[in-house]
Amino acid sequence: MGRERVVIVGGGFGGLACARALDGADVDVLLLDTRNYHLFTPLLYQVATALLDPSDIAYPFRTVFRRSRNVRFRQARVTGVDFDARRLTVAGGEQIPYDTLVLATGSANAYFGNPELAERTIGMKHLDEAMRLRNHVLSCLERAAQIADPAERAEWLTFVVVGGGPTGVEYSGALAELLGMVLGRDFPELAPGSARVVLVEGADRLLGAFHRKLGAYAADTLRSRGVDVRLSTLVGQATATAAVLSPTGDGESVTIGARTIVWSAGVGPDDPLHADEVPRSRSRRLQVDDRLRLRPGVYAIGDVASVDSGGGELPMLSPPAMQEGRYVARAIRSGGEPAAPFRYLDKGTMATIGRRSAVAQVGPLRFRGFLGWITWLVVHLYYLIGFRNRAIVLASWGWDYARRDRPIRLIVRSRFDPVVASLIPDDVSAAP
Amino acid sequence: MGRERVVIVGGGFGGLACARALDGADVDVLLLDTRNYHLFTPLLYQVATALLDPSDIAYPFRTVFRRSRNVRFRQARVTGVDFDARRLTVAGGEQIPYDTLVLATGSANAYFGNPELAERTIGMKHLDEAMRLRNHVLSCLERAAQIADPAERAEWLTFVVVGGGPTGVEYSGALAELLGMVLGRDFPELAPGSARVVLVEGADRLLGAFHRKLGAYAADTLRSRGVDVRLSTLVGQATATAAVLSPTGDGESVTIGARTIVWSAGVGPDDPLHADEVPRSRSRRLQVDDRLRLRPGVYAIGDVASVDSGGGELPMLSPPAMQEGRYVARAIRSGGEPAAPFRYLDKGTMATIGRRSAVAQVGPLRFRGFLGWITWLVVHLYYLIGFRNRAIVLASWGWDYARRDRPIRLIVRSRFDPVVASLIPDDVSAAP
Repeated sequence: MGRERVVIVGGGFGGLACARALDGADVDVLLLDTRNYHLFTPLLYQVATALLDPSDIAYPFRTVFRRSRNVRFRQARVTGVDFDARRLTVAGGEQIPYDTLVLATGSANAYFGNPELAERTIGMKHLDEAMRLRNHVLSCLERAAQIADPAERAEWLTFVVVGGGPTGVEYSGALAELLGMVLGRDFPELAPGSARVVLVEGADRLLGAFHRKLGAYAADTLRSRGVDVRLSTLVGQATATAAVLSPTGDGESVTIGARTIVWSAGVGPDDPLHADEVPRSRSRRLQVDDRLRLRPGVYAIGDVASVDSGGGELPMLSPPAMQEGRYVARAIRSGGEPAAPFRYLDKGTMATIGRRSAVAQVGPLRFRGFLGWITWLVVHLYYLIGFRNRAIVLASWGWDYARRDRPIRLIVRSRFDPVVASLIPDDVSAAP
Repeated sequence: MGRERVVIVGGGFGGLACARALDGADVDVLLLDTRNYHLFTPLLYQVATALLDPSDIAYPFRTVFRRSRNVRFRQARVTGVDFDARRLTVAGGEQIPYDTLVLATGSANAYFGNPELAERTIGMKHLDEAMRLRNHVLSCLERAAQIADPAERAEWLTFVVVGGGPTGVEYSGALAELLGMVLGRDFPELAPGSARVVLVEGADRLLGAFHRKLGAYAADTLRSRGVDVRLSTLVGQATATAAVLSPTGDGESVTIGARTIVWSAGVGPDDPLHADEVPRSRSRRLQVDDRLRLRPGVYAIGDVASVDSGGGELPMLSPPAMQEGRYVARAIRSGGEPAAPFRYLDKGTMATIGRRSAVAQVGPLRFRGFLGWITWLVVHLYYLIGFRNRAIVLASWGWDYARRDRPIRLIVRSRFDPVVASLIPDDVSAAP
């Protein structure tokens, strides 16, 4: 008889918080993830806009648990779970037994069943997507600088961002800032103001998770910085050269010529379980009980789990995931029986809109503008894992703020990426 | 009548030095490169061993020439030159006229006509190769940690480096250091010393461009750090799981199981000209006269050009390329007629072998060990372009030195890369 074997699948905010809270406990913990690093997703848009480097916001799991006696990491993709035999199958066929299982597999881009959107847009969920987006946007500028035809040039300089949640708002604000910095300066061929960022949101307001006033403030701020914000509008169609926008009311569809469409409009739970194996909520997240149990010995936390908070399920955000992870760790430490139902403590939500402007909401308090921005800076630096990352991120932000410059502007793209290849027909950077 | 139009093809050390020396001159300069950044290739092996990030050693051309009145950049691949009409053709078909042309297109990996080597090895010439190599090596460790079979595990932990020039010496030293840092610590599943770096060189000594004593010192130092140095040995065959080594004497071939073969054994000139258009040296570099002219109005410099130094052609290194670039710029500034033949001033050569050890050679002086290493550090920091890069590189080196740690250890690989896909059969990081 060995010690209790806990397997955590997924090292996002929930899985990592659970594994850290179990570090030193009297159980053996195996953390599985398809990638070898934890990603600080709230700053992903800064990687996508060439302000930060990948290593600034990612931290290898093996480094996190280097000094742990009982937590081990393994890079693996889980393809199935046999709940009765209590074991997982990973890609390659190997089986991994568990006594207690924590499913924290997170979420993935969801396209409402529209494969064209999946193919023609670039997502913002993972580091490779952010790098692809960054290389793509910089390539579009190089391309536009060479195009004489005004209509085609405008296509290369038009960037459509779909989805007005925190990711879409933060990315479109940062992209407008980046374009303002480089057009006319690094690209003397391109007039300042000749590029266009269009933010498209289906609802009648931005930042649906925030108070309505903060959503309106975000829209006003983005517009004052040149972002074309279109509310109550859906993207009906995406082609290689255009996005077709359809107002949700009775307006007529508009076709916008654009070579770049960024997808931040929808994510769905991402798990390896078959449809009929487990109960799911309407949003297709795994339906857990009030103690986060999917079934005996199996917990689900974070984006993949539907946790009832009294007024509907908790949003797909890092604070609930981390609290759920720590709650499950406490339950495992105490021998398997959670003492009390899980209760989420809302410590607030925030989003930045760009230079010196952000919105934050803590209970009844609302911050915006410069104060919100400072709050945002401190909180994000605090939660960034690892001293080195914090120091470099702070230095990059300081440079960006003081010099109004963005030092990292390389196009290092894989010549094997079909999206880049299809969007840039004569690939100038392909190796000979 | 406009001003004289100078087109420089290639922004490596030669092309960049030429463009910078023409900044402010009474000519219009257009710099073309297939990539949008200058790469500080001497530190590429540090990116490949996860010590530096890509942006630390790469600098966008547009940033370099942001304040220039007469130097412009354009990302383009030149596919041909019409010398009589004085114009270039770029990928996509467009034609670019010139009055004076500077060919500085550099060199590319050369495999002595063996396509198997090209396919089965990973090069070290470009940033994308260095990133691929880094992701590949880290993936091999993750993979080895999961393999029970000792023979297969050894394959994943064996790294064959082909070529004992500066790149091969520096990379194998840095790789041995990286493996020493992470085995047993980040990877408790892998015993310290269970990985193996094999450096294979066809000649009977390392660092052929240096004094024989420094080559011997490099071999001794690498061996003392655990690198298996094999001199007078060629790689005859490369498969997905092995390298076949053939001694150049009458010894028997040896097959070494390895999933990683790094190619630094040969480069050749890389230019878009047809074989019969221009005179070439035996090494296939463009044969220029003693004033670096390929023909009237056309200069060739750097790796692509064969420049006679009295005792054979100058080596493919950055110092000759930079001096040639500045020489050509002076000739152009003075109205097109170089006053005196080009003369190379040898300021020395250096290579690092790892922590606190390097070799350097300046005329009759030879340095090695710690003094060589300090010299190496200062010279490389001095030549790194841009203040931010220098500061970050210095910080990374300090961290590495003080903590014996390597903070950047992410596997961010493109799921479209066929090399990675073929070497790692069940790709654990592929997106769903």
